[in-house]
Amino acid sequence: MTYRAPINDILLALNHGAGLGKAVAAGHYGDFDADITAAVLEEAGKFAGEVLAPLNRVGDEHGIKLADKQVTTAPGWPDAYRQWAAAGWNAVSGPEAFGGQGLPLAINAACTEIWSASNIAFGLCPLLTLSAIEALDAHGSEELKKIYLAKLVSGEWTGTMQLTEPNAGSDVGALRSRAERAPDGTYRLKGTKIFITYGDHDMTDNIVHFVLARLPDAPAGTRGISLFLVPKFLVNGDGSLGARNDIYASGVEHKLGMHASPTCTMTMGDAGGAIGYLIGEENKGMACMFTMMNQARLAVGLEGVGIADRAYQQALAFAQERKQGRAVGKKGDGLDPIIVHPDVKRMLMQMRSMTAAARSICYATAVALDVAARAGDAKVRADAAARGALLTPIAKAFSTDIGNKVTYLGVQVHGGMGFIEETGAAQHYRDARITTIYEGTNGIQSIDLVTRKLAANGGESVWALLEELSAIVKQVEASNDPAFGTTGAKLREALGSLERSSKWLLERMASAPNDALAGATPYLRLFGATLGGCMLAGEALAAKSHGEAEPGRYVAVARFFAENVSVQAGSLEKTVMDSADAVNGADAVLLG
Amino acid sequence: MTYRAPINDILLALNHGAGLGKAVAAGHYGDFDADITAAVLEEAGKFAGEVLAPLNRVGDEHGIKLADKQVTTAPGWPDAYRQWAAAGWNAVSGPEAFGGQGLPLAINAACTEIWSASNIAFGLCPLLTLSAIEALDAHGSEELKKIYLAKLVSGEWTGTMQLTEPNAGSDVGALRSRAERAPDGTYRLKGTKIFITYGDHDMTDNIVHFVLARLPDAPAGTRGISLFLVPKFLVNGDGSLGARNDIYASGVEHKLGMHASPTCTMTMGDAGGAIGYLIGEENKGMACMFTMMNQARLAVGLEGVGIADRAYQQALAFAQERKQGRAVGKKGDGLDPIIVHPDVKRMLMQMRSMTAAARSICYATAVALDVAARAGDAKVRADAAARGALLTPIAKAFSTDIGNKVTYLGVQVHGGMGFIEETGAAQHYRDARITTIYEGTNGIQSIDLVTRKLAANGGESVWALLEELSAIVKQVEASNDPAFGTTGAKLREALGSLERSSKWLLERMASAPNDALAGATPYLRLFGATLGGCMLAGEALAAKSHGEAEPGRYVAVARFFAENVSVQAGSLEKTVMDSADAVNGADAVLLG
Repeated sequence: MTYRAPINDILLALNHGAGLGKAVAAGHYGDFDADITAAVLEEAGKFAGEVLAPLNRVGDEHGIKLADKQVTTAPGWPDAYRQWAAAGWNAVSGPEAFGGQGLPLAINAACTEIWSASNIAFGLCPLLTLSAIEALDAHGSEELKKIYLAKLVSGEWTGTMQLTEPNAGSDVGALRSRAERAPDGTYRLKGTKIFITYGDHDMTDNIVHFVLARLPDAPAGTRGISLFLVPKFLVNGDGSLGARNDIYASGVEHKLGMHASPTCTMTMGDAGGAIGYLIGEENKGMACMFTMMNQARLAVGLEGVGIADRAYQQALAFAQERKQGRAVGKKGDGLDPIIVHPDVKRMLMQMRSMTAAARSICYATAVALDVAARAGDAKVRADAAARGALLTPIAKAFSTDIGNKVTYLGVQVHGGMGFIEETGAAQHYRDARITTIYEGTNGIQSIDLVTRKLAANGGESVWALLEELSAIVKQVEASNDPAFGTTGAKLREALGSLERSSKWLLERMASAPNDALAGATPYLRLFGATLGGCMLAGEALAAKSHGEAEPGRYVAVARFFAENVSVQAGSLEKTVMDSADAVNGADAVLLG
Repeated sequence: MTYRAPINDILLALNHGAGLGKAVAAGHYGDFDADITAAVLEEAGKFAGEVLAPLNRVGDEHGIKLADKQVTTAPGWPDAYRQWAAAGWNAVSGPEAFGGQGLPLAINAACTEIWSASNIAFGLCPLLTLSAIEALDAHGSEELKKIYLAKLVSGEWTGTMQLTEPNAGSDVGALRSRAERAPDGTYRLKGTKIFITYGDHDMTDNIVHFVLARLPDAPAGTRGISLFLVPKFLVNGDGSLGARNDIYASGVEHKLGMHASPTCTMTMGDAGGAIGYLIGEENKGMACMFTMMNQARLAVGLEGVGIADRAYQQALAFAQERKQGRAVGKKGDGLDPIIVHPDVKRMLMQMRSMTAAARSICYATAVALDVAARAGDAKVRADAAARGALLTPIAKAFSTDIGNKVTYLGVQVHGGMGFIEETGAAQHYRDARITTIYEGTNGIQSIDLVTRKLAANGGESVWALLEELSAIVKQVEASNDPAFGTTGAKLREALGSLERSSKWLLERMASAPNDALAGATPYLRLFGATLGGCMLAGEALAAKSHGEAEPGRYVAVARFFAENVSVQAGSLEKTVMDSADAVNGADAVLLG
């Protein structure tokens, strides 16, 4: 159960598929020196393989413990976290003014894949910290930034995001935690939060909680929510830690997977109220949350990519070792490794090609978000922002769907051994399961894609993307390379399905919104299958033209994806357009 | 987490979809009184709901223990098993000459669904006993039958099937356990078996093991395997239990799911050799195994149906209770249950329609196996045997794929709660995972479908089935019922895809067998999607014409399946025909 970061695949996807190379050449990345990318990723891969991967199973078996209001993580975890932060990994894309390295989000995206692949439950902790950094950097007062931001950027302290309550999950506006104004300008928070990831742990001295709560006079719903910074330990004027704040882990969940990541119930106000500091303005907490949603959703998509790659690596190694049966037509004695069987090859190619497609989509999202933040030209920034917004729900949902499908296949390739926990394939399968749920369920991503992203500007972002994808398909067709098989034809058909479905949904959004909502999930899958196929084909072309050592491998991956996944676009188009009545008329069946 | 057997749905699928009614009317079931079916299933549902369902979670949490070479099951389990056997449930389809009720396999198939739905780990135990009964009844000597068969039929003793060894999983022929002839005509067995389901437990006084092993002078491979009956306790002449035999559970697996079902490593020969009795002839053990494969595979398919239905019932109840957000366009205060959201309706309809399709396919398989064994006319028996053989791999693989997809969706409908073990949705998801692996992986089922079942008689069994399905589609089209939506068109297209793919595979079987093998899995899915869609449409038509109380529900289910699952046939056809090169050329990617 070793892990080796697929540096060549990552670099191809990043530089060519996702367009980092082109964006750097166009000057959108300022003075970023792209030559360091490979070296950074090599180092990340080394740390992940040597330190994090060996702790993955320990964490799963040992889990976490809550005693005396304090969570203890698995053996070796606090030490690994400190090493990881000390090596500067938490600070990769952090703001330079607060000690960050200011590297592109795209580089950190590749690192996030690597941490998730090696140890997804470990990698989850810094994801929350990054969201906290983003919120504080964008909306916090200078005073709060001075005290907390550098510690969060370095990873010396971690962050949490506290939205969910028993009756407020996907519907954040239903939350009830209360914040009362104190005379000194701070607030006193009371209430209970659930499902708080790394809500407490023993890996750092302090934890900085970002908590959504309502003021006594707040309007109902999402317009009455404010965001507060609530430290586990108060911080003295000299930066040293002061009194324990009135926020505690009062319970931890027994979960299907991610056993090493504490999921806490947090109680505030048992001793009068947790001291909190307002972030941004009163009642504008949801706006603060929205600014960081893109990055957090992308990060979860990258978890999908990472866990998929890990499962693939493990299944591939098993299939090369495990001997059962013989290849068709083989003479003589002796068994063959199961990788000779076409059905096993099919599973492994599904795993590999789906992982690669998800990776490309996620990295392209990261590059778009980077350009939106970094480019000098306002139009370039605006276009990139629209592209990033469009791709984010696809990156999140399509990649985490893939994380689940690939880990499922990983178990299947192992046969009976896959069902035995000792093998490790089952852990990936269990760990992956949450990724389609948190940071907005994949259903919510689909609705976001249709109702906000597709509908923005009458579909303009989608048409612009379709044009780029169509250009790739033209190149595939023009290449006349027989190794592409029917890739060009499959992608051409998929693009047609995506365009027609997009137009149909735009029309229904106006005339029959429930019809559009009924088609949201198949539409997102259709989008991912088409986009992923085109991107892989583009990477294969780049591999051929840029002197990659074995470009045929990328052509084969692109072809497999087009002929097995992108080919589903036609069926998905029909489902989008024809099944709305069956969905919206379901009450007679479901409630009968 | 209650369970209520869906008796109406089961009866419609059994009597109309699967054709039990027609077969009884044609006299193929002899003097079987079909009027008792509903009463038997009502009773089974009652027992399952009251006794077995409440033990499902207990079993998962408690698991099993191995100490002093003896396995202990979870609290309440031995008692429940004894009640279950005492009520006659083990004997439903057992041979009347040995105390069985001799009811059709189709009735027992519905019961198997019910046991699996209420408690899949419990229901697994009698599945093994039924295989043992089948082997002993078909191939055992009269003496062995006299001693063991009645006890197995009543369920007073349970049976195990011991094939797998560390190096012999899918490839049974590689097994190494040894059997030596003893002077008294019995045998002494030595060796180690792994993954033995209910290899030991405390629910009965004795366990009758059916063990594959090699004689010292046996030929290599599958032609040198013999089948032995090896009791846990030897049986005295008067039927009382004698000495403990030299076969012990030496280990139990820590598994992803099915925690309550002991999966044992069995060691024979630590004290000189386990006493075994030959079943059938020496070196003909594989033939004995093959005779019972159809029923065992069908039974696993029914596990898929059962666990899917359980997950559906739980998700439906949750979606009706859990309030988050509001329906589109709704005014006023208050949250709605999440079932108002089209995306949630879509998930629930996927769950329900896929479960129903799998059920119909499994029951049709059972009716075919019944008619093959019971009909008076030799031609009817032969045709039914061919139908049963054709449907068995589809029943097994398609239904267990569905069991996994539906339990996956069950977790998703629960949102964050689905990831918490306490909710119970995750248990179904974990338990279902083994069903695509044991009794022949689903990849092996696909290969069986293509290389043996489709290829038998040049595809004759498939053409005969296509004709029947086409007649159903004609009726849908002729009904002009707008509630069917595009069902007729979707099924017509799917039938075309299935026919063309079948012909293509038949041709490739001869000219390029690896191309046919590469397409086996998508072909099985295409077959299931088409067959399931047509069967559900047929049931909907029957519900309308036979005065079912709410036929519209069945029409809606059939329509949803056609427009969301059967519609995939076109894409799957392309994958079957176009992706063989991508699969068989994968070595460059996978091994590069």
